[in-house]
Amino acid sequence: MRSFEPPRRILMGPGPSDVSPRVLAALARPTIGHLDPAFQALMEEIKSALAEVMKAPGHACVPLPAPGSAGMEAALQNLLEPGDRAVVAVNGQFGERMAEIAARAGAEVARVDHDWGLPVDPERVGAALKAGKTKLLAFVHAETSTGARSDAGPLCALAHDCGALSIVDCVTSLGGIEVDAEGWGADVIYSGTQKCLSAPPGLSPFAVSAAARAAIDARAAPPRTWLFDMGLLMGYWGGAGGRTYHHTAPINALYGLHEALIALLEEGLAASHARHLRMHEALAAGLEAAGLELLVAPADRLPQLNAVKVPDGVDEAAARGRMLARYNLEIGAGLGPLRGRIWRIGLMGASATPWHVRLCLTALTDALAAQNYPDASRAALAAADAKLGD
Amino acid sequence: MRSFEPPRRILMGPGPSDVSPRVLAALARPTIGHLDPAFQALMEEIKSALAEVMKAPGHACVPLPAPGSAGMEAALQNLLEPGDRAVVAVNGQFGERMAEIAARAGAEVARVDHDWGLPVDPERVGAALKAGKTKLLAFVHAETSTGARSDAGPLCALAHDCGALSIVDCVTSLGGIEVDAEGWGADVIYSGTQKCLSAPPGLSPFAVSAAARAAIDARAAPPRTWLFDMGLLMGYWGGAGGRTYHHTAPINALYGLHEALIALLEEGLAASHARHLRMHEALAAGLEAAGLELLVAPADRLPQLNAVKVPDGVDEAAARGRMLARYNLEIGAGLGPLRGRIWRIGLMGASATPWHVRLCLTALTDALAAQNYPDASRAALAAADAKLGD
Repeated sequence: MRSFEPPRRILMGPGPSDVSPRVLAALARPTIGHLDPAFQALMEEIKSALAEVMKAPGHACVPLPAPGSAGMEAALQNLLEPGDRAVVAVNGQFGERMAEIAARAGAEVARVDHDWGLPVDPERVGAALKAGKTKLLAFVHAETSTGARSDAGPLCALAHDCGALSIVDCVTSLGGIEVDAEGWGADVIYSGTQKCLSAPPGLSPFAVSAAARAAIDARAAPPRTWLFDMGLLMGYWGGAGGRTYHHTAPINALYGLHEALIALLEEGLAASHARHLRMHEALAAGLEAAGLELLVAPADRLPQLNAVKVPDGVDEAAARGRMLARYNLEIGAGLGPLRGRIWRIGLMGASATPWHVRLCLTALTDALAAQNYPDASRAALAAADAKLGD
Repeated sequence: MRSFEPPRRILMGPGPSDVSPRVLAALARPTIGHLDPAFQALMEEIKSALAEVMKAPGHACVPLPAPGSAGMEAALQNLLEPGDRAVVAVNGQFGERMAEIAARAGAEVARVDHDWGLPVDPERVGAALKAGKTKLLAFVHAETSTGARSDAGPLCALAHDCGALSIVDCVTSLGGIEVDAEGWGADVIYSGTQKCLSAPPGLSPFAVSAAARAAIDARAAPPRTWLFDMGLLMGYWGGAGGRTYHHTAPINALYGLHEALIALLEEGLAASHARHLRMHEALAAGLEAAGLELLVAPADRLPQLNAVKVPDGVDEAAARGRMLARYNLEIGAGLGPLRGRIWRIGLMGASATPWHVRLCLTALTDALAAQNYPDASRAALAAADAKLGD
């Protein structure tokens, strides 16, 4: 066994995205103790920065010590008690996962199913909320499996109007499009580090409202999960009473998140969102010039996750394989009912640059041409260049 | 907010331990995708190396994507169903935690309580196992809160003889003393990365026997936890049928674990155990020469975790504070009933060197002398040097 030297890769799949050298450098700083005063100061800065990027000034914000799915698990396992009714909007793989975890938490799950590629429908969610006494609504803001964006504010308002709490999955949205926990009135939002924050996977930023904390405090029994018990986690991350020992924080991963948050705040949230949108418009123009179609209707598209329909007669896996082999470029495959039918192209964080857009269009049109699809590289690049304006 | 530059620290607490430059460098290698063929090859190497260091050739071995407590949670939540009887040996903080998590899993918990500082008593555990139909026995091999080592083989055999499964917490033992899942007949063992493996915290190496997997497969309902559902995790880490998407693995943390495992295998398990023992003997001789006492009886001591009684009249927190301020040296405090009564000095992985032993004795005797304890630095170093033989 030898030291692992990763191959050169350009990450334009559904995550992880490219991690910038400054974040990689932060990961490698010497490990210190999790009870060290210097580390406690770092934790405070991370909490403040998370509140800023999640627009959650009144929420308690902490990064959970595990990948994005930990946020989903923690939200549902802490808020749901056996027998509670949960309305779960399912419009892709991650809504499906929410429904599964809610069922494991013992909830009566009222699913609101959608065709994959559509945003969540407020009308049908509203009807489901009114159909019974409901503890919470859960839905995905940015469906990574399809590239559809749902309108979080009105959905949270519907829940609130019915006396239900709201959980919003922001794994793929945070940093790439507006996330506004306070403005939406969302009770719990969570994200991942390996999408538009461009840190490595392994942590789940998590924000919880006062109402959600009160609901957790009022549980008849503690949640089954000990590691993600919010009462214990919040005690560890410090409140009025100081810190209580719980798990050992993943020190170096938190160095990386801290640096990624600094980078995002230096750029500014609005500037980051504008950059993601501009790269998406350029990529979409190039794809369309190459005769390709996106899965999602224009109004509902996520800039950072572009689901592209595989043309008839094209072997999608062979195309991805060629892009990886010849261009070191990774894009994603479809999941579930979209397996074999779409590619997923991420423009997330450090992977949302004009260079990435051009490289991806070059690699994809080359892979298509290798399968006797008409060569469209010039047209695609020209269309993208027109949008990039440089 | 500025980039975080950690202060210089020497880590001799209960974990994290010092992380070597080669492991830090591995963390900072560029992130690649978790579905990349190169990453899949890395996963296979990690599985093989874990099986080797845990002496678990017939177990399925994977690193869980969260700190050591995740191993405890996964073991108990996967194996226990509501109403199952679990015998839990409690001889410190981590046995206490096992009992709590087993109760959250819905088990009827039969505690076998011990005074903190004692090893687990096979006789009393045997009696508890025979007192009712028991699903599993859970105990801690190396109690990080006290420094006591329990004899894992006979305890696992007692469980086996009663038709019960066995879970052994090896968070602090792996790499520092012999861990032998196969030889013990242990069904589940788990560890952490931040102790004698000297990688940063954030992952939990986990091994599960065929019998334990059969018990999980036979569950009436899936475990509440989705993230740590062993069926899903094992599918992700690959078996005969290839990999199934689950969470996104913490790529860079796994680079670090991989490098730490290489370092351990290069040294050799027996050599690493011998080194930990030699450093412990030198430290213990130095402490005794300074008039200090260890909490645990000689035969039951863990080399890698030394619980030192705080002398009467000495302020333990002030001593630790001085060691940190003047020597950048971190040692640990006592937990639970031992709070204020002991220090915990770790000699784990890269922190188990003669240099660490001498620095710690120097810093501790200095801190004691500052509180009017007789100066013992010369005597302590001479006693350690005699054991170190150089």
